[in-house]
Amino acid sequence: MNAIKDSVHDWIPLDPVAADLLDTEAFQRLRHIKQLSTVRLVYPSASHTRFEHSLGVYHLAGQALESLGVEGARARAVRAAALLHDVGHGPYGHQTEEVIRRHTGTDHDEIGDLLYETELAGVLERHDIDPDRVAALVRGEGDLGQVVSGELDVDRMDYLVRDAHHTGVPYGTIDHGRLVRELRSRDGRLVLAEGNVQTAESLLLARALMDGVVYRHHVSRIAGAMLERACERLLDAGTPVAEFRRMADHDLLVALREEVPDLGARIERRDLYKRAVWTGLDRVPDAVTELSREDERRAARDIADEADVDRERVVVDVPSLPKLKESRTRVVVNGVVRRLEGASELVGALRATRRAQWRLGVYAPAAEQDAVAEAARDVLGLPR
Amino acid sequence: MNAIKDSVHDWIPLDPVAADLLDTEAFQRLRHIKQLSTVRLVYPSASHTRFEHSLGVYHLAGQALESLGVEGARARAVRAAALLHDVGHGPYGHQTEEVIRRHTGTDHDEIGDLLYETELAGVLERHDIDPDRVAALVRGEGDLGQVVSGELDVDRMDYLVRDAHHTGVPYGTIDHGRLVRELRSRDGRLVLAEGNVQTAESLLLARALMDGVVYRHHVSRIAGAMLERACERLLDAGTPVAEFRRMADHDLLVALREEVPDLGARIERRDLYKRAVWTGLDRVPDAVTELSREDERRAARDIADEADVDRERVVVDVPSLPKLKESRTRVVVNGVVRRLEGASELVGALRATRRAQWRLGVYAPAAEQDAVAEAARDVLGLPR
Amino acid sequence: MNAIKDSVHDWIPLDPVAADLLDTEAFQRLRHIKQLSTVRLVYPSASHTRFEHSLGVYHLAGQALESLGVEGARARAVRAAALLHDVGHGPYGHQTEEVIRRHTGTDHDEIGDLLYETELAGVLERHDIDPDRVAALVRGEGDLGQVVSGELDVDRMDYLVRDAHHTGVPYGTIDHGRLVRELRSRDGRLVLAEGNVQTAESLLLARALMDGVVYRHHVSRIAGAMLERACERLLDAGTPVAEFRRMADHDLLVALREEVPDLGARIERRDLYKRAVWTGLDRVPDAVTELSREDERRAARDIADEADVDRERVVVDVPSLPKLKESRTRVVVNGVVRRLEGASELVGALRATRRAQWRLGVYAPAAEQDAVAEAARDVLGLPR
Amino acid sequence: MNAIKDSVHDWIPLDPVAADLLDTEAFQRLRHIKQLSTVRLVYPSASHTRFEHSLGVYHLAGQALESLGVEGARARAVRAAALLHDVGHGPYGHQTEEVIRRHTGTDHDEIGDLLYETELAGVLERHDIDPDRVAALVRGEGDLGQVVSGELDVDRMDYLVRDAHHTGVPYGTIDHGRLVRELRSRDGRLVLAEGNVQTAESLLLARALMDGVVYRHHVSRIAGAMLERACERLLDAGTPVAEFRRMADHDLLVALREEVPDLGARIERRDLYKRAVWTGLDRVPDAVTELSREDERRAARDIADEADVDRERVVVDVPSLPKLKESRTRVVVNGVVRRLEGASELVGALRATRRAQWRLGVYAPAAEQDAVAEAARDVLGLPR
Repeated sequence: MNAIKDSVHDWIPLDPVAADLLDTEAFQRLRHIKQLSTVRLVYPSASHTRFEHSLGVYHLAGQALESLGVEGARARAVRAAALLHDVGHGPYGHQTEEVIRRHTGTDHDEIGDLLYETELAGVLERHDIDPDRVAALVRGEGDLGQVVSGELDVDRMDYLVRDAHHTGVPYGTIDHGRLVRELRSRDGRLVLAEGNVQTAESLLLARALMDGVVYRHHVSRIAGAMLERACERLLDAGTPVAEFRRMADHDLLVALREEVPDLGARIERRDLYKRAVWTGLDRVPDAVTELSREDERRAARDIADEADVDRERVVVDVPSLPKLKESRTRVVVNGVVRRLEGASELVGALRATRRAQWRLGVYAPAAEQDAVAEAARDVLGLPR
Repeated sequence: MNAIKDSVHDWIPLDPVAADLLDTEAFQRLRHIKQLSTVRLVYPSASHTRFEHSLGVYHLAGQALESLGVEGARARAVRAAALLHDVGHGPYGHQTEEVIRRHTGTDHDEIGDLLYETELAGVLERHDIDPDRVAALVRGEGDLGQVVSGELDVDRMDYLVRDAHHTGVPYGTIDHGRLVRELRSRDGRLVLAEGNVQTAESLLLARALMDGVVYRHHVSRIAGAMLERACERLLDAGTPVAEFRRMADHDLLVALREEVPDLGARIERRDLYKRAVWTGLDRVPDAVTELSREDERRAARDIADEADVDRERVVVDVPSLPKLKESRTRVVVNGVVRRLEGASELVGALRATRRAQWRLGVYAPAAEQDAVAEAARDVLGLPR
Repeated sequence: MNAIKDSVHDWIPLDPVAADLLDTEAFQRLRHIKQLSTVRLVYPSASHTRFEHSLGVYHLAGQALESLGVEGARARAVRAAALLHDVGHGPYGHQTEEVIRRHTGTDHDEIGDLLYETELAGVLERHDIDPDRVAALVRGEGDLGQVVSGELDVDRMDYLVRDAHHTGVPYGTIDHGRLVRELRSRDGRLVLAEGNVQTAESLLLARALMDGVVYRHHVSRIAGAMLERACERLLDAGTPVAEFRRMADHDLLVALREEVPDLGARIERRDLYKRAVWTGLDRVPDAVTELSREDERRAARDIADEADVDRERVVVDVPSLPKLKESRTRVVVNGVVRRLEGASELVGALRATRRAQWRLGVYAPAAEQDAVAEAARDVLGLPR
Repeated sequence: MNAIKDSVHDWIPLDPVAADLLDTEAFQRLRHIKQLSTVRLVYPSASHTRFEHSLGVYHLAGQALESLGVEGARARAVRAAALLHDVGHGPYGHQTEEVIRRHTGTDHDEIGDLLYETELAGVLERHDIDPDRVAALVRGEGDLGQVVSGELDVDRMDYLVRDAHHTGVPYGTIDHGRLVRELRSRDGRLVLAEGNVQTAESLLLARALMDGVVYRHHVSRIAGAMLERACERLLDAGTPVAEFRRMADHDLLVALREEVPDLGARIERRDLYKRAVWTGLDRVPDAVTELSREDERRAARDIADEADVDRERVVVDVPSLPKLKESRTRVVVNGVVRRLEGASELVGALRATRRAQWRLGVYAPAAEQDAVAEAARDVLGLPR
């Protein structure tokens, strides 16, 4: 059995299915999709890719299945799903997800069509694995689907540890060895065995701390908002979305520089807009927190007009309210399966903490920062 | 300048004062005091000592002083205090602290007398450092004393990272580089600069997670309670407390095996008592949570009598309620210095979480476990 | 002072010069040049960039200068040179170096012109640093230039540790803390202080082990040879070399796919040629080991013709003989400065070892492997 | 299945045999035997024990057996042998080995008698494992015995990595994952599979570098020689060797302080003798390099008499010449099994390097250093 060296899990042995899937163009493309897109503008060491992350998820899935006592054909399908769970990502991963959803109505974890459009379905079938079953597992269906996508999935376990390793930020260092060992299946649900409330809390806390310091760092958010805007313009300019969603990072960087040169060049050389507005939830009207992406673009145009600056030079960024998916984790407490949010006081507090960290952002070039700030307060109805 | 290799901070350069202090018998003794005493019965890799921890605290103190812009004689005194902050510990560190306090009325951080009884005061004076000043700093006096002992002290930063490194438990991995860089002095108080609420929270969370999984692990608590009881008996048997408190770990292990052979041998070979009672706060009368150590011993005797077992074979262990000292950390928020507990929702939740983790323990040999459990419920008034 | 988080050296504080240099387009470009180019086709975690490496070199240079007692204007120039030492690299770093040298006659460490063509010279002058002095330091001139480029340079110290961290291969883990502390200047030469023969050996060994397992891994070599060939064809097809050498990795990937589609697509999706010939030094005529790149191309054409395959489908790869630059390191031994190769038996043996690892490669698509192997033996005069 | 957290290998699952063996007094004693004895006087973080090392060896043995395809009863015996391979060590491990050998004629790896004298044999038999088979495996007998004790044993793989982790010295960081995966059995011999000459070299190099910087550091050697002398005096003073060899480190420290107070106290507080003589192989007569321990003591007495100092205050330390056991490693090269020393130029060079590092030591208190140096040259016939 072949093995690949990984900087997080050391040697990762590959089963024959994985070895064949690895060789496909669709999977090799993940070498060119960075795991943390614009985060690396803040943490320069964080240029790791979805290729290595996918291998890590495959590796942890294997350990989880062993711990759950699942073997044979069922296990092989889950491991394949773990390996493929990210092949549906567009360029720059999560950062283009919303754009693609608006233009196609589908999410990156709906990989059924993709499997058949590429050689992936063929490879799976050659190994007697049903591609539709794999696609269902990636969507998180069934108890084993939760291993791949759910509150306790190995995706999360890998990315927290990997992102910590590559950024250098220590907060994501969870005990994935323990998490994987303590997984159980109860009535078709994936749960953590008795005595693991704190294990579940630690996962939630790691995620919350990484959110604040890494995933939602303001520099990454500004670059991400600029990138999303640039992608919209790229699509408006005629690039078909079917082509767009299959680009790799380097294709997108070059396409943006050519088709949307102002934003493209700025992103490439990290010459970012500044924060004209950066305001917490307590000072933002509810109507604003509920803006759709279309509304955001409209608001940006209105602000630009009022500030008398070019419409392309204002970006409005209204992040979603934090969801804390990990709080839905199931843990056995005194023999009874409970959701973590019912078993831990921390969940409520973290929710409050993360609401307190929420910020509305309006970004513009440094020269226009003041004018845009002024106009934005008017247009969005913010207090002064 | 000489340097010592450390597995946590790599090379630690020593100033001339530190080099001379290191060579004293009082400091070399710390090589023989384990940092985590009975914790290593759970985590076998955790046999690190207060010697290496003291070097680490000295190292971080130097970085903190640099960050605060403190130099010269003041800095030298603080660095010396950081290095010496643990020389007052008895054998097995915190585990004998309570015994020593009861018999002498003093704590391990009152090192004034010790400095003069040993060659330490002489070394300090030779370098123009006032031993009384060092003792005051170790007690946490003054703004610079808070660097050595306070909510934001470098002691805490070193032990969290070091204990994580040596146990293998990832939860203590704080970003001490950032903590040290963000220290400021405001009106004679040590605070964290603007934008560091989450930095402060991360310290608190690391401590809380390490408490649950490491510092208060039940195996370590059982061994610790047995050790404390054995030490009481050693003192009862005639060992002078002045001699006892200056023992190293190996002296104590041998003395216990000779003078208190039943408990001594059990501790040495990890043949521990079992939990006859292990009960949360909601099922324990307030009167029990407030028991003094003397009361505990009396209760243990009563339980033993009622269960008709040897009085030495029952140990009652009522831990103090968690204090969360880190919640008093001061952080600048919008230009104003605030306590973390006022600035973060997490503090209250962590307090609740840790109350939920609190357990009353009554321990006895496996053979007597049931009888003792029965008797303990009567004597302590616990529900059935 | 600003600081950047690095996954190898933790926080790296930036002086004002570095902060300004960082913001230039020429330096930001290094975010898009991978440190190990085709190595990441073998070690998927190794997607780190010359941007983070340059920061690491800057950081170690600062420590080396401190250890050497160099301060003020001289130190500032050296730190700037350390930061900028790689700005002259073409896309894919060392992999295009030879192509660029052939077409321009200059190496990546000749950055004088580049400084003046970009905003870098202006930034340096604004901080009273002479750009020509920086360029000279990058070329390794003077005793301080050796800190930046020489047998004991901090470039080497950073990349060994960093490449080990990112590949997961443990062999590069040198003790850079010790190396930097033991640097001395003797008669205008950078040397290691007395007692460091083994320290010097460890650097040499780390390099030799990493060479075998990482830098000269056959998969990376195949991809690298294909890339170099593709770049030659790109230039032949009309891309000006001045434009080529300033490309970033993503520009090159896209350009190759468009202009040299067969090789471009293969490199992008790791669909590599196979080894038709892979032969050690003892079976290769001297004339072959001395082939120039032009000769290689001619031989490849001849082989293709004889095998009757498309000329573009044969690549001949004759690596240079290992030079072991580290063996020239100077160490003080019994008070006398000596070259490591005179002070250590290991140098000769390593030279032999690396000669034994040398391999001539001829690569072709799997379908043509046998025919090409046959023809190559004829054309190159290899024994059967 | 139970698992123990280890700072090197993370979670180590225990099979039922291991779990029962762990609970014995003979195995728990290893908690009190430090892995590196006097090395921790140089590297303060290196206070790890043979308990955690034994767990690590057990863990790697399991992986090696999996890689070799060995299962069932044979595998269980090897894993048990791996776990128990160090139970025969006296206090301070290798440092008292020579003393015990002289007084009993047996080595630490002859554990047959010990198994039957303790409860270990009983535990093994309860699990249908023959204690004599385990003892034979610990002696390295048979092809599987080589997994436990041989040139490629997992003992070596664990201690190199573990000692690196705990000292902080990076040189021991071998790729044990690869070593274990590449093990093969050929004609009853343990070998490394084709393509692993460098893998074998890396093990040898790691050992050689660790020897120079860690295992043979002069401070550790001085303390070790003082300790050995003190132990001889302890036995001379009447402590039975049967009791001595079963002591733990703390027993020995206390016994020495009481029975051999001068040396005992010096070792405890690191108040070590100085090097009166420290001379390389080229300046030492062959007769001296061949001195037995008895001869060493006689020479020490003669030197003391000539220098007119107390006989107990001179220690002569003639280390054995380096053996480089790892050079006997078998590797498959072009299909043929070869010894590494025949396949690698490095072996001869390392032998030369280590001969160059060899030093004769004569140690004495600082006050007597000069007189002893003078006398030692006469007595040992050293050039001036």
